[in-house]
Amino acid sequence: MPKKDVHYSDYLQLDKILGAQVMESELEGAPAHDEMLFIIIHQAYELWFKQILFEIDSIAAIMRQPAINDNSPELQTVVHRLGRIETILKVAVHQIDILETMTAMDFLDFRDYLRPASGFQSWQFKITEAKLGLRYTERHGQEYYISQLRQEHIDLIKTAESQASLLDLVNDWLQRMPFFDKPEYWASYQPMFPAATGKHPFWSDYSGIYTESLVEGERQNIRYFETLFFDDTAHPERRLSARACRAALFIMLYRGFPLLQAPFQLLNSLLEIDEQLSTWRYRHVSMVTRMIGYRSGTGGSSGRDYLKGALDKHYIFREIAALASYLIERRRLPVLCRELEERLGFEARS
Amino acid sequence: MPKKDVHYSDYLQLDKILGAQVMESELEGAPAHDEMLFIIIHQAYELWFKQILFEIDSIAAIMRQPAINDNSPELQTVVHRLGRIETILKVAVHQIDILETMTAMDFLDFRDYLRPASGFQSWQFKITEAKLGLRYTERHGQEYYISQLRQEHIDLIKTAESQASLLDLVNDWLQRMPFFDKPEYWASYQPMFPAATGKHPFWSDYSGIYTESLVEGERQNIRYFETLFFDDTAHPERRLSARACRAALFIMLYRGFPLLQAPFQLLNSLLEIDEQLSTWRYRHVSMVTRMIGYRSGTGGSSGRDYLKGALDKHYIFREIAALASYLIERRRLPVLCRELEERLGFEARS
Amino acid sequence: MPKKDVHYSDYLQLDKILGAQVMESELEGAPAHDEMLFIIIHQAYELWFKQILFEIDSIAAIMRQPAINDNSPELQTVVHRLGRIETILKVAVHQIDILETMTAMDFLDFRDYLRPASGFQSWQFKITEAKLGLRYTERHGQEYYISQLRQEHIDLIKTAESQASLLDLVNDWLQRMPFFDKPEYWASYQPMFPAATGKHPFWSDYSGIYTESLVEGERQNIRYFETLFFDDTAHPERRLSARACRAALFIMLYRGFPLLQAPFQLLNSLLEIDEQLSTWRYRHVSMVTRMIGYRSGTGGSSGRDYLKGALDKHYIFREIAALASYLIERRRLPVLCRELEERLGFEARS
Amino acid sequence: MPKKDVHYSDYLQLDKILGAQVMESELEGAPAHDEMLFIIIHQAYELWFKQILFEIDSIAAIMRQPAINDNSPELQTVVHRLGRIETILKVAVHQIDILETMTAMDFLDFRDYLRPASGFQSWQFKITEAKLGLRYTERHGQEYYISQLRQEHIDLIKTAESQASLLDLVNDWLQRMPFFDKPEYWASYQPMFPAATGKHPFWSDYSGIYTESLVEGERQNIRYFETLFFDDTAHPERRLSARACRAALFIMLYRGFPLLQAPFQLLNSLLEIDEQLSTWRYRHVSMVTRMIGYRSGTGGSSGRDYLKGALDKHYIFREIAALASYLIERRRLPVLCRELEERLGFEARS
Repeated sequence: MPKKDVHYSDYLQLDKILGAQVMESELEGAPAHDEMLFIIIHQAYELWFKQILFEIDSIAAIMRQPAINDNSPELQTVVHRLGRIETILKVAVHQIDILETMTAMDFLDFRDYLRPASGFQSWQFKITEAKLGLRYTERHGQEYYISQLRQEHIDLIKTAESQASLLDLVNDWLQRMPFFDKPEYWASYQPMFPAATGKHPFWSDYSGIYTESLVEGERQNIRYFETLFFDDTAHPERRLSARACRAALFIMLYRGFPLLQAPFQLLNSLLEIDEQLSTWRYRHVSMVTRMIGYRSGTGGSSGRDYLKGALDKHYIFREIAALASYLIERRRLPVLCRELEERLGFEARS
Repeated sequence: MPKKDVHYSDYLQLDKILGAQVMESELEGAPAHDEMLFIIIHQAYELWFKQILFEIDSIAAIMRQPAINDNSPELQTVVHRLGRIETILKVAVHQIDILETMTAMDFLDFRDYLRPASGFQSWQFKITEAKLGLRYTERHGQEYYISQLRQEHIDLIKTAESQASLLDLVNDWLQRMPFFDKPEYWASYQPMFPAATGKHPFWSDYSGIYTESLVEGERQNIRYFETLFFDDTAHPERRLSARACRAALFIMLYRGFPLLQAPFQLLNSLLEIDEQLSTWRYRHVSMVTRMIGYRSGTGGSSGRDYLKGALDKHYIFREIAALASYLIERRRLPVLCRELEERLGFEARS
Repeated sequence: MPKKDVHYSDYLQLDKILGAQVMESELEGAPAHDEMLFIIIHQAYELWFKQILFEIDSIAAIMRQPAINDNSPELQTVVHRLGRIETILKVAVHQIDILETMTAMDFLDFRDYLRPASGFQSWQFKITEAKLGLRYTERHGQEYYISQLRQEHIDLIKTAESQASLLDLVNDWLQRMPFFDKPEYWASYQPMFPAATGKHPFWSDYSGIYTESLVEGERQNIRYFETLFFDDTAHPERRLSARACRAALFIMLYRGFPLLQAPFQLLNSLLEIDEQLSTWRYRHVSMVTRMIGYRSGTGGSSGRDYLKGALDKHYIFREIAALASYLIERRRLPVLCRELEERLGFEARS
Repeated sequence: MPKKDVHYSDYLQLDKILGAQVMESELEGAPAHDEMLFIIIHQAYELWFKQILFEIDSIAAIMRQPAINDNSPELQTVVHRLGRIETILKVAVHQIDILETMTAMDFLDFRDYLRPASGFQSWQFKITEAKLGLRYTERHGQEYYISQLRQEHIDLIKTAESQASLLDLVNDWLQRMPFFDKPEYWASYQPMFPAATGKHPFWSDYSGIYTESLVEGERQNIRYFETLFFDDTAHPERRLSARACRAALFIMLYRGFPLLQAPFQLLNSLLEIDEQLSTWRYRHVSMVTRMIGYRSGTGGSSGRDYLKGALDKHYIFREIAALASYLIERRRLPVLCRELEERLGFEARS
């Protein structure tokens, strides 16, 4: 049977999309022009959240595999899709400019009709946070959060929270990195510092160099260094294990090698995503302040205080970001042995 | 009867909005990941086109009045909403970045399933162009345009084309400007040049100064000057009458006066809108070229050639833009007489 | 004597501009590629700070006049130049993207050569903050600030701090607004609420309506309302007097009237500038964190902690922003009397 | 000898940078406020052009080597720096927003003082175009170009034109790709189509599949296909040889393989750079039109006509962009043999 011709309007279901704007102010007999903008911009945001969730799910499906085949495009696909999420978030931030064309007085014209609805009820955004790695216990204003949402949405968020998040999957993936497990990689490695600490000789060297590079007033960092990278006991509050931290640091340090380029881009994209989410929250706070000042939100929250609270607490990949403190100058890096160098690159081919 | 509580999901009709994505590639049994993005970004564009149309209609409703009351916020509302359209278009341009995260190979994975649908079938965009002022006869690829659209959409566009467009309304509004009609404004005006030409003394002066300011090789401009500003016979191909051009030029020249500030912002916003639409088309051409090279579009058009054709021809407010050629230095401007100065400002009040 | 021909290179003094990049890493014999970017981006920032200062000075010169002539383009010029500062700041924020193409490891290659230089030593930025209205006592990390700068730059900043800032000038300008002083404006005003409080009848009405509109949990705001708008005694910690607050609120409420449009745009631009400055600081914190983690800055500061401190404290126009809490719905606004309406508009002219 | 402390002001040579703004209008006794902006924005552009040239030179130095070591970060460095050029160009485009805050009337206040200087005289921009690959013969308005520039700048541009451009180096690098030279890669390749054409069996297959995928009206493309990819005779007007085109197409088709990821990113960045340069020219045309209408430029050129001419002709990497026409669906790609797959990936390492 021949396939029916596709038409733009049907394909995009424009009857649904363009027929989904009903202004409360109109129902109440006092049409407020700017309510249309208010509806449409939130719908546009929800469309983008759907797309972001679609990307996160596809990324998680790849990362969840016991082993990502390095000889396949899979890791590149992950990097590419994280990059797309970044780009979407940049547009989402820019989109706030449109909402800012609605002044405080314009908003007041219909604000009361919306009670007790609230952007807080965007369950897609909360699921996004959960799937990336935000835990319930880390959420700002937890009780409030339960009280505002419908049971069906709470369930969806709880389900997302109960599954391995992208952060968990990244931790697992980092832990699987084989660099320090395989003796053959390190056969000819020449330690500079005696490996007195019980660490792998490479890390003994690295600790030594790192310690030397600290300037006055930073000496105490060395203690965190030991905990962060070498305390292999379980710490429930940590999201990355010591072993995963070592792998991530190694990737950052030697990112020039072909095998480490995609892993480096992956880690970098996670930080970008956090930065864009955070910029979005920050601009959101500023906008809300200009719109309603220090009043309550339509949902009854303390408005900007809630948003400000989330701003600091909802940084998801902070443990990856923190590793930047422990980088050292390229010229001081321990020189890898030839076996490992080869493994990290392609065979000479040109 | 007490009003029902409003809930975010119901208010935004998220069941419709988030349930309107069906991938053709999935129906065909070969799901292509990037088709979701393709659907969602087009839906986001259509939402924004709906908003732009909503703003244009509200602006036209104000401009259509026989007289805009200067002692009301109406003109400011027009300016504000034109500014909002600008801001939306800037985000629309930025949004192309998201589509560009889809590479040519990703697009090929589902492109064939979409035939013969085409972005060309976005009737909202065509209505937007028509309501701003693009006439059917000025459209690039007219026949093609008829062949692609459904009758119901053609009817909508034809209806839009048959009504007074924003450009028409701006022309009417400019023609109503009273500055040169009211003798009392010009009671004490002292012409510098003898008003030999039959023009109002002010324009005699202005022509004289303008002619003096031309450098070598621009002398021929003076002919256009005469036609543009003083040929008051009807010219069907012109969108602005000579009288309207004089009013627009006067606004541009003396925009510092309180009464002319909002009119100046209005004219300026029209040029901004054209510039953003044009940037959007330009980035669109570039993107399509990178995506499909020099192949046919899914709708069968010559793809980028169509878009390039539209690029040059669909400049709607070009006659306003062209007036910039005829400005002169502020220090050489004819000095207005005191009566007029007062009318253009507020009474002294401080 | 005929003027010498101007040439692009000479006009822009490109020999100076393009000859001012000396890399410390090169002087030290270890050229680090990314140091060039580091130098050039900071030079580009300083050029833009010079431009911003040039605009602020020109704005202050207008605002410093005992009376701004409303029948002149002066206020529009102020608004236009504030808008330019906004646009420059938006590009300044975007410019951080360029610096973010320098990764932490790239920065480490030359970071140590720069000690103890620090972006903290940008005296132009500090003068900008001072001229806008940041007081020494409000600065985060005051002692540090003295210790880092050269005496000549401290002097420049102190001079800026000792002069009337833009915020001071805005306060003075708001105080001069004549709306409630002139009995004739209010001749036919019909109060709705008995003016028992000793306030002007208009403000009695406004307090009444505002109080009615408060929802549960916001009742306490009324106390701030009284203090903010009616405590006319001097409060050194306040930047806007009660009288200036009344004028600003009045402008925000009735901004649709022609006479209030430019004043409203002026107030709005100040908030935009604060928001852009604040976004700039926020992105700056994020970038520094990604670059150096939790290490000390090259100048010895606690790096991101300093920046985070400034983030909250350096909001200059916060008292204007706070007024948004006190707006009420347009449909509930007290109706002005006819005399005042006329004063706020143009005479009927159409 | 201990190194002298570095100070921000000295390091950035702020005395030079901030002391290089002299307004011609001031020298002429008629200071025009906006001339300062005009100077500073052009200086900022020239700083960025210097940075772009610095990046291009460093990229060319790597690409000029007889062989880029795949087991080194070199190719990644090239990709990273091309990405930086993209980012700088995006800011350069955004920066036009700042110039657009100068209205036509503001520009007229000092425009005449600048004659005959012209942005056309930015030799750094012309060198950038030349180093990327624009040939003298491809330039729009060649004679004009000679007449405007100083001999020293013409010499600099001529030198740049006489050296291998980035486009030339990319062609050479693509030509060196070894995929089809080494018999061992293809040992077990099973052709689907009889290799009747004398081409390598892989390309025979590819031609077959590509031809099948053409829809009605695209059949004639097959002729270009043959010429583009298989006419190995020299064509001076072509910038990429047939052999280089084959390598580029192969990279685009199989970009998922680890070894091809960086090469794909490199090609993609070149297209991005062209797109940004072209957007920059396009916005520049729009801005000039709004500023001076259809008048002559200060340098005497036909202003916007020159810019529009350059717009179409100065697309540098168009031959790479054109390859998008020849991609096929991923699911129809010829399956590579195992030997080649292994060479394009890492050894299995999990």
